[in-house]
Amino acid sequence: MDNFKFYSPTEFVFGKDTEQEVGKLLKRYGAKKVFIHYGGGSIKQSGLYDTVIAALKTEAIAFVELGGAKPNPIDTLVYEGIELCKQAACDFVLAVGGGSAIDSAKAIAAGALYDGDFWDFYDRKATVRKALPVATILTIPAAGSEGSSATVVTKESEGLKRGMGSDLLRPKFSIINPELTMSLPMWHTAAGIVDMMSHIFERYLSKTKDVILTDRLCEATLISIMEAARKIVKEPNDYEARATICWAGTIAHNGSLGVGREEDWLTHGLEHELSALYDMTHGAGLAVMFPAYMKYVLDEDVERFYRLSTKVFGVPENHFHKREVALEGIERLMLFFKEIGMPTTLKDAGAEKVDIPKLLETLEINQGKSFGRYKKLTLDDARKIYELAWE
Amino acid sequence: MDNFKFYSPTEFVFGKDTEQEVGKLLKRYGAKKVFIHYGGGSIKQSGLYDTVIAALKTEAIAFVELGGAKPNPIDTLVYEGIELCKQAACDFVLAVGGGSAIDSAKAIAAGALYDGDFWDFYDRKATVRKALPVATILTIPAAGSEGSSATVVTKESEGLKRGMGSDLLRPKFSIINPELTMSLPMWHTAAGIVDMMSHIFERYLSKTKDVILTDRLCEATLISIMEAARKIVKEPNDYEARATICWAGTIAHNGSLGVGREEDWLTHGLEHELSALYDMTHGAGLAVMFPAYMKYVLDEDVERFYRLSTKVFGVPENHFHKREVALEGIERLMLFFKEIGMPTTLKDAGAEKVDIPKLLETLEINQGKSFGRYKKLTLDDARKIYELAWE
Repeated sequence: MDNFKFYSPTEFVFGKDTEQEVGKLLKRYGAKKVFIHYGGGSIKQSGLYDTVIAALKTEAIAFVELGGAKPNPIDTLVYEGIELCKQAACDFVLAVGGGSAIDSAKAIAAGALYDGDFWDFYDRKATVRKALPVATILTIPAAGSEGSSATVVTKESEGLKRGMGSDLLRPKFSIINPELTMSLPMWHTAAGIVDMMSHIFERYLSKTKDVILTDRLCEATLISIMEAARKIVKEPNDYEARATICWAGTIAHNGSLGVGREEDWLTHGLEHELSALYDMTHGAGLAVMFPAYMKYVLDEDVERFYRLSTKVFGVPENHFHKREVALEGIERLMLFFKEIGMPTTLKDAGAEKVDIPKLLETLEINQGKSFGRYKKLTLDDARKIYELAWE
Repeated sequence: MDNFKFYSPTEFVFGKDTEQEVGKLLKRYGAKKVFIHYGGGSIKQSGLYDTVIAALKTEAIAFVELGGAKPNPIDTLVYEGIELCKQAACDFVLAVGGGSAIDSAKAIAAGALYDGDFWDFYDRKATVRKALPVATILTIPAAGSEGSSATVVTKESEGLKRGMGSDLLRPKFSIINPELTMSLPMWHTAAGIVDMMSHIFERYLSKTKDVILTDRLCEATLISIMEAARKIVKEPNDYEARATICWAGTIAHNGSLGVGREEDWLTHGLEHELSALYDMTHGAGLAVMFPAYMKYVLDEDVERFYRLSTKVFGVPENHFHKREVALEGIERLMLFFKEIGMPTTLKDAGAEKVDIPKLLETLEINQGKSFGRYKKLTLDDARKIYELAWE
């Protein structure tokens, strides 16, 4: 087990009707003027927008707002938010939505107290030294941004999708009401499920030995996610299944499941090039890339995949044919992704085979010529993985 | 699943040599004059005391100190600490030790900023409204106090052992170096293991339905604890096993494993009377009380114990004989406790059968005439459980 730091200071307020506590929570955390950031019209249709505004008014908390956050949040909206936030002298940022709204809200919170270009943080030219406090009301369980230090933004003009993280951007509080996720279309529900499973895979596929406790916690969470996902496919309004997905998405990315081990994050890197080029839903891209990546690196540590297959995917133990058992697990993962309506090949996901060189070009800009921790890979390996993912 | 709040803001710094970071961490958290509280001479023999003092001196942080914390920490030492802490105008409390040092340090941190008698907090006459910031260096994995809001103190003159909790008492940071636990005698190691398992049982034995994700996280942690415990019995210097025990003890009590469910804590209540009367090691008392309690409440929900037996204790599934399978699990738990050197009967633990009325007397003072959430119990039920635990 490696040395580690675990720090997840966010107050998670979870359950039915919890969004009604937002005013009181903001007040307790000292907010006087709140910058509210959200996505499209769905929070207005659902009534959540009205609930939030009413709660703020009850507590006499001033606010300005900016909607329009989209999947794969873009820099231009962040610039607009920073400008608005500075002009209004807001002292708190509240994101209402999924990972996109939260990720751009974090960028705005850091950018509002920075004199330079906020992209410096994503470009590794600057480190976040101060930021407005952030809080969230989660409506799409997926990115885990409600409990993480991370934010990912796309620089539209250059097609670059990049992430950065700072403990200063961990939300002060996050409100998670599973009922708010019941109206999510199955596509977005499924893409979120793939995303949170991928957050666990990036940690589970580790070369660090003797982290058996986190191995088991990862496995327990993966099994629970898949079980709940299958219930939601049948009954979208299953509260308990929605609640399981919501909490699993949070613990998949607040650090709980990564303690004591080297993490990878290369597959997220491979996927970011897809999202940037095609504006592909992140979870759909991951559903394509993870099985291909797993097959490509399988022989690096057959035992690891054997454990995953037998403990999570229910493949019967067979010590004489470990590689076959390991491969069967990856097949079952693909079948599960199909079952919940996700693509599992680049072809099905709407990519073009001729674009692979373009993907490698931006990959090189973002990751260099060599990358990956679980297995050190080159651009040529990446090309082979994209090709393996083709059909 | 019930609505819940999860809040674990402590920064956990885990691994080899991490105690050397204490000076820098205290400085980062703004400590200027630290009240250091510890137990007996063991931290002086091990060199940990010198390391801490040297780290503070390097950062030019002033300090006063008070040793002498004992298992089942007593009020008289807390009064002494509060007085010292006030006189020296300390602005931070650092506990170095196990649950006892940390629990009394928390009491001192709350008492130092309170004009009345600190026992008011334990007597439910007052609520903690402010407290000095607390941090810990853990040397005995057991109580989970390094990540919890809780503190338990004994009022010696009246033989009352009572707990209270406040988010203000959650440590700012906790340093956990598994190497520091290698020199612990097996008795204390084992008692700590029973304590952390009990923290999980108090949460696992819940009537709240559909909290399958936390069920599985509890099971994963229990399995990992027992596996590591067996390794430590054979090889006390097994770093990975010690590390598993350390982290399991923390997550067993920082809230991670209790989300979304009603918790009980009655068995802790039954045990507190033993600790108060005999100064019995808390973990040893729990090793006696939990199997007896489980047998007594088994029929309340055979399914729950059936799950525990099959998922955690490896009893083969048998749907025609669920009660027998459930009972077999409790037997295996007792065997495990014996295997690591713990008593499993009151007789072995050194209690006197004639004292049962005395235990019931203080139990009534502390818990009233009716108690327990998993199953509502009376004083007569408690008598039967103590009798069941006798031999």
